[in-house]
Amino acid sequence: MNEVSAKFAQAPAESLTMLPSPYLLFLGDTVDAGFAKTAFGLRDWAGERCVGEFALPQASVTTGLKRLTPQQAASIGARSLVIGVANAGGFIPPSWITALTRALEAGLDIISGMHMRLTEVPGLAAAASRLGRRLIDLRVAPTDLPTASGLKRSGKRILTVGTDCALGKKYTALAIARGLIDRGIDATFRATGQTGIMIAGTGVPLDAVVIDFAAGAAELLSPDAAPDHIDVIEGQGSLFHPSYAGVTLALLHGSQPDIFVVCHNPNRRHILGHEEFSLPTIQAVIDQTVTLGRLTNPAIRCAGVSLNTAGMSAQAAAATIRDTGNAVDLPAADPMRGGDTFERLLDACM
Amino acid sequence: MNEVSAKFAQAPAESLTMLPSPYLLFLGDTVDAGFAKTAFGLRDWAGERCVGEFALPQASVTTGLKRLTPQQAASIGARSLVIGVANAGGFIPPSWITALTRALEAGLDIISGMHMRLTEVPGLAAAASRLGRRLIDLRVAPTDLPTASGLKRSGKRILTVGTDCALGKKYTALAIARGLIDRGIDATFRATGQTGIMIAGTGVPLDAVVIDFAAGAAELLSPDAAPDHIDVIEGQGSLFHPSYAGVTLALLHGSQPDIFVVCHNPNRRHILGHEEFSLPTIQAVIDQTVTLGRLTNPAIRCAGVSLNTAGMSAQAAAATIRDTGNAVDLPAADPMRGGDTFERLLDACM
Repeated sequence: MNEVSAKFAQAPAESLTMLPSPYLLFLGDTVDAGFAKTAFGLRDWAGERCVGEFALPQASVTTGLKRLTPQQAASIGARSLVIGVANAGGFIPPSWITALTRALEAGLDIISGMHMRLTEVPGLAAAASRLGRRLIDLRVAPTDLPTASGLKRSGKRILTVGTDCALGKKYTALAIARGLIDRGIDATFRATGQTGIMIAGTGVPLDAVVIDFAAGAAELLSPDAAPDHIDVIEGQGSLFHPSYAGVTLALLHGSQPDIFVVCHNPNRRHILGHEEFSLPTIQAVIDQTVTLGRLTNPAIRCAGVSLNTAGMSAQAAAATIRDTGNAVDLPAADPMRGGDTFERLLDACM
Repeated sequence: MNEVSAKFAQAPAESLTMLPSPYLLFLGDTVDAGFAKTAFGLRDWAGERCVGEFALPQASVTTGLKRLTPQQAASIGARSLVIGVANAGGFIPPSWITALTRALEAGLDIISGMHMRLTEVPGLAAAASRLGRRLIDLRVAPTDLPTASGLKRSGKRILTVGTDCALGKKYTALAIARGLIDRGIDATFRATGQTGIMIAGTGVPLDAVVIDFAAGAAELLSPDAAPDHIDVIEGQGSLFHPSYAGVTLALLHGSQPDIFVVCHNPNRRHILGHEEFSLPTIQAVIDQTVTLGRLTNPAIRCAGVSLNTAGMSAQAAAATIRDTGNAVDLPAADPMRGGDTFERLLDACM
């Protein structure tokens, strides 16, 4: 049982255990920035909890944060080393073991969202046990989750949904939470994936949950709150994804969102990795989400559309945002570009 | 990893490992027939694989099968003892341990669908190991399942769906499979729950699957088959259930049914255990299932309605069946009562 699941075993979601921070970001021997998305995400969205970065000599990627040894990081207050890079297999190579052990010896816990368990790394569990340090695997399934009650909770909830996987649901939720907080609203980002959990410091790794408990896990994630509080929940999958629609529906029902935002990548034509499946229209996602979401929140409504316009010129992005908003008659914006359009999307979220 | 999951780790679903049978049905010390549903289900639907029953002296429930000791059962070919009773907590009481150990000593494996693991029963794992026998827990999650591909498979598929949980989806699927086989059709019952798996001798315990792999597990369950072959798949949950709709959707998408049958209990007004949720109408379930099922099978259609009229008079049941059929303009029947109405429902399944 990992840190994130431990909190559920102890029950009340109001007291979710936080991951130990500040973090030292570990970059391994990574030479491709595309594999360091977790580290960049932590720098951008949880910078206040990152003291610096640590990498093997072979690494050429950098977050721009101060480069520190584990000992230096610990001396200025770091409590954990976060594996901030991925590789194609999701495994932890033997070349990292010495560095990870150094972190334990410096007094840091290790946090990983990789497929391979930290406890499977030769020697690491023994070292952690000897040194009294924790190995925290964010892909370990929570235990003792409840099934969903379906009962209405107090407070407001926003959920990001999508036309597909991997097109900006996490960043949209983070940007909306930050935007609301900047407006003085009491808002909380709620994480459902490994990177999001590192950023938030807590959350539910939904992809590791046994299916009967998925909606129940989503209920625990956004507990009763003050009437004006807004939870902004990281979405998963898509109702139109042949592999993951069940995940999306369980999260929708458990989250009971008052408001949802549809995330979309205008350049995508098919479901990622499933060329046989055309991307649904934004309107189809809106309609289906309202139809299904009504079960646990009859007042559910769509606030607008979040577009991932990365790689477009400013002019092309602006045109796409305008045309999309007109087509569905709702605010549309690219939260990464911000601006007036994003402010109008935030208006619609309130 | 249990017997059922072992087959998936070994990959091709065509070669699903079968549970060891014939079975000896264990009734424990049960005095309430309501707790022996699994044993009765095995007697009724897999009678050819049950050699007899075995119970503690305190038990008053009987299946009517021959009462045998484990030694007697083994001597006439039994290969496993199946725990055919449940209790409120899903646990295995200390008073059963001697009997279970006797079964192992007689050369039988033990099969359980209870929440408590057989390996958690004091002394049982050691006895099984010493005797070279297997403890097969049907609630252990399969490992190494694939995610769903969404690719169309050959052969035909029927899925039972429902207005709620626990109203006859398993028995409807069993009755349809038996009815089709009686008509000379090459049909196979495909199990998704513990009792169904015992009856079929194989299957996927869907409630134990990690959510990302649920649709993939459903794909494995009904692999490519001859064009005229019909898989009749045991449904789970309901698209209108606040806790389990995600399970239902993953099973729907992975099963890619050509045909579905809606199961309903005319006496039920609310979702079981969730008084705040009204039961959906049969028509709502038909419409929602078609809308969502089209994603992986555009030709999906509803064959009709299976009504659970247990406890009604023959006259009241006939009237309910007639009125329901008229209301949705499709065949309706109670498969447990059979008759002409059920034959018409079978016609519509072909």
